[in-house]
Amino acid sequence: MADATAWVNLLTSISSQSMPLLATAEESEAPDGTLVLAGVLLSLIAIYIASKVGGELCSRINLPPVLGELLGGVVVGTSALQLLVFPDTGALASDSLIMNLLERSTDLNPEEAESVFEAQSEVITVLSELGVIILLFEIGLESDLQELIRVGPQAAIVAVVGVIAPFVAGTAGLLYIFDIPTVPAVFAGAALTATSIGITAKVLSELGRLSAKEGQIIIGAAVLDDILGIVILAVVASLVKTGEIQVGNILYLVASAGAFLIGVIIVGRFLGSYFVGLVNQMNTRGKLLLMALVVAFTLAYVATIIQLEAILGAFAAGLVLAETEKRKELEEQVSPVADIFVPVFFVYVGAKTDLSVLNPFVPSNREGLILAAFLILVAIVGKAISGFTIFGQPELNKLSIGVGMIPRGEVGLVFAGVGSASGALSESTDAAIIVMVILTTFIAPPLLRFVFKEEAAVPAQGTASELTGGKTESVTSSSEAGETETAQEQNKS
Amino acid sequence: MADATAWVNLLTSISSQSMPLLATAEESEAPDGTLVLAGVLLSLIAIYIASKVGGELCSRINLPPVLGELLGGVVVGTSALQLLVFPDTGALASDSLIMNLLERSTDLNPEEAESVFEAQSEVITVLSELGVIILLFEIGLESDLQELIRVGPQAAIVAVVGVIAPFVAGTAGLLYIFDIPTVPAVFAGAALTATSIGITAKVLSELGRLSAKEGQIIIGAAVLDDILGIVILAVVASLVKTGEIQVGNILYLVASAGAFLIGVIIVGRFLGSYFVGLVNQMNTRGKLLLMALVVAFTLAYVATIIQLEAILGAFAAGLVLAETEKRKELEEQVSPVADIFVPVFFVYVGAKTDLSVLNPFVPSNREGLILAAFLILVAIVGKAISGFTIFGQPELNKLSIGVGMIPRGEVGLVFAGVGSASGALSESTDAAIIVMVILTTFIAPPLLRFVFKEEAAVPAQGTASELTGGKTESVTSSSEAGETETAQEQNKS
Repeated sequence: MADATAWVNLLTSISSQSMPLLATAEESEAPDGTLVLAGVLLSLIAIYIASKVGGELCSRINLPPVLGELLGGVVVGTSALQLLVFPDTGALASDSLIMNLLERSTDLNPEEAESVFEAQSEVITVLSELGVIILLFEIGLESDLQELIRVGPQAAIVAVVGVIAPFVAGTAGLLYIFDIPTVPAVFAGAALTATSIGITAKVLSELGRLSAKEGQIIIGAAVLDDILGIVILAVVASLVKTGEIQVGNILYLVASAGAFLIGVIIVGRFLGSYFVGLVNQMNTRGKLLLMALVVAFTLAYVATIIQLEAILGAFAAGLVLAETEKRKELEEQVSPVADIFVPVFFVYVGAKTDLSVLNPFVPSNREGLILAAFLILVAIVGKAISGFTIFGQPELNKLSIGVGMIPRGEVGLVFAGVGSASGALSESTDAAIIVMVILTTFIAPPLLRFVFKEEAAVPAQGTASELTGGKTESVTSSSEAGETETAQEQNKS
Repeated sequence: MADATAWVNLLTSISSQSMPLLATAEESEAPDGTLVLAGVLLSLIAIYIASKVGGELCSRINLPPVLGELLGGVVVGTSALQLLVFPDTGALASDSLIMNLLERSTDLNPEEAESVFEAQSEVITVLSELGVIILLFEIGLESDLQELIRVGPQAAIVAVVGVIAPFVAGTAGLLYIFDIPTVPAVFAGAALTATSIGITAKVLSELGRLSAKEGQIIIGAAVLDDILGIVILAVVASLVKTGEIQVGNILYLVASAGAFLIGVIIVGRFLGSYFVGLVNQMNTRGKLLLMALVVAFTLAYVATIIQLEAILGAFAAGLVLAETEKRKELEEQVSPVADIFVPVFFVYVGAKTDLSVLNPFVPSNREGLILAAFLILVAIVGKAISGFTIFGQPELNKLSIGVGMIPRGEVGLVFAGVGSASGALSESTDAAIIVMVILTTFIAPPLLRFVFKEEAAVPAQGTASELTGGKTESVTSSSEAGETETAQEQNKS
């Protein structure tokens, strides 16, 4: 078996022999192509099974499927089965169950294993990034630009309050209650400001509430929060590094974000009909989908190079293309693409979450857990109140708006990563931030569902339903899953 | 600009600082995540634009769009614009226009550039491999297992004749006409036996002929040819390396290929209803598509580890799932996924094709071009006659069956790669094989379309149409594009 090799296998091993030029590159050994592909296939199989098992279990107990995808990721990830582990969190090929399986099923030797592991991890990482890009593109397509502009001022207030309230309360509490030094206190406060737009948007979409006014305020506020978060992170990081705040840098970030979003919307309005005309003239397979992805990827790239996030560009592309007559057709075609890419993102986030900091039997975790309890309280209350800043619209479910801003997700983990790398955070503060991020991320989906359901239950069954509580919920759950789907269908058309 | 960085950017740079464990891995410097993503986005934009521009142009002059995708790949690839070049063919980051663009638009420095280039090339390579896997899965779904089994004996004859005829004629000609030594002559003969199932299947699908009897014979023969090719390559490679043929190895390959295909079909028949039952019990988004991809990726992985090709596993998965009641629904959902993945494969193949060997003004190319002319003749005639080995079925378009086997594609390039790496081939023989592969690959799609069109034209317009020739073709072209699409739709339902 070690002698006969498949074609691509041969090609790769051969081309690296026959191309001495390659040796001048720093990392000379190109990993074996067949083995990388085999590793990627195994990883995708694990990701899809984890996402479906988790999603189905959660949907059966009336929780949002995306929570199940995150939990499925935790199960196959670094905290449990170690099927999906990543070199950038310190894992080696020997830690990965998938690499062990590959070594046993192919002629992979331990020396090669490290480079195959890195290559396949790189591919899965990029697939997960493409996953959240396509998710935000789909969210943009399902959003209503007019409605977003209409709720813009309200979203801005929600975003600003949702950033200031947890930041001030968190930083002050750590300074005066826990006697934490200024820099780590500011850092932890900054981590409290983040919102994971991906998780929130996915839950809203699953609940069929994306196009509701609350949904659009949440999405608008989350987008603004994302931009504010980039600014805050830049401020805090430069504060830690240089001890001062670079005002020019902040102005640049704010101005480029504003110019980008407004510019895309204005230019998009003019070019939308041109896009439709171009696609209508084409007659090969996949014309609409591919041209739409060219727009989405181009804007994602532009957003990246002006220091924003790729997902903001993809969201803007979705918003602009949703204004064209191709919206419905495009939504139908993007849907299966999102089905295969988006779970990679959520399982990836779950797989990278290290739950060991939650174990109270490890003495060093305890100080962190106490700090975490405080941070979680501030994280939930600080965001929850932000919805109540909207005055004079009694028909809005204001609590749901604040609750929608709760999950910190991958954005919060970035804050924790920056903090721990800067050396400014003590181990317990670092752990406390991670625990806060995990808890807000995993609690937000069921909480959001609960808040929206309360609202739905009240007009139908009056106060009597509150007596039966959980019982009523489980009875209505199966029919509601159906309703939710129908609502989504209706929103699309 | 060099100071403020986007989030993921920060996370990546930080985690590599804070994780000293990483340094123990051989290739310690993990490339910057944001930059790899940016490189992948730029590459995908280039791939999609190249595939659509090429595909649209070809469809307008009545050639199969897939030829345009290959040519689009040539234009953006190593032979022309150098947007898409790959480290495993000796390219450095500085050769890549995309890397140059990245360096100019971000804070990427030249030292980092090499690792970012390798990582993004690895991702695009895997995406192209996933592309051909999904293509063959889709082809399997659109194939008819009963029909394939029925035409099995005919396909086997076509495959065997299509392997033996070019091999014997090519090797003998090189030995006795051109006085080439035995080993390189055998190698060149072996390269003549390959068939690119991907290109043939895609053209058949574009012509709406996949489900026709001719189409099923071609697909069946191409699958068998793929297996024969793996065996031949193993034989020739071991002949060159050790001077002898390892019989055990050959028996292993043949037995495992047969056991795999037959095993999957038998097991699939039993588990098909179980698959449908499982999917019907699920209620989250993407259930059918994800579970089907789990089956396809699992069989692709199994095919890889038993030394077959991943695409054979994906094809078998498609065949098996096509037998279930979910076929139509699955085809609809796989279609957009194929739309975004498959062009990556064809553009990738085109981009890696180095056309410089075709330049007759380079003196060293001339000997190769003369040899190539002979190989091309044998390559076309040797395959074209294979269809005529089917007796007693006058209604079959036998020429189209042989023509369908002509494209050598990526499989032929692997033979050339193995040969050049073994050192057994002279430069001119190596170049001649590459020219033969390029020409058969690019000529087969229009030839196949022409052969099928001749047949369609004859009953409708009689011999009179032959007088007007090209004129008639261009007149009917626009209506035929429509017809082809309708035919495909009908085949699906």
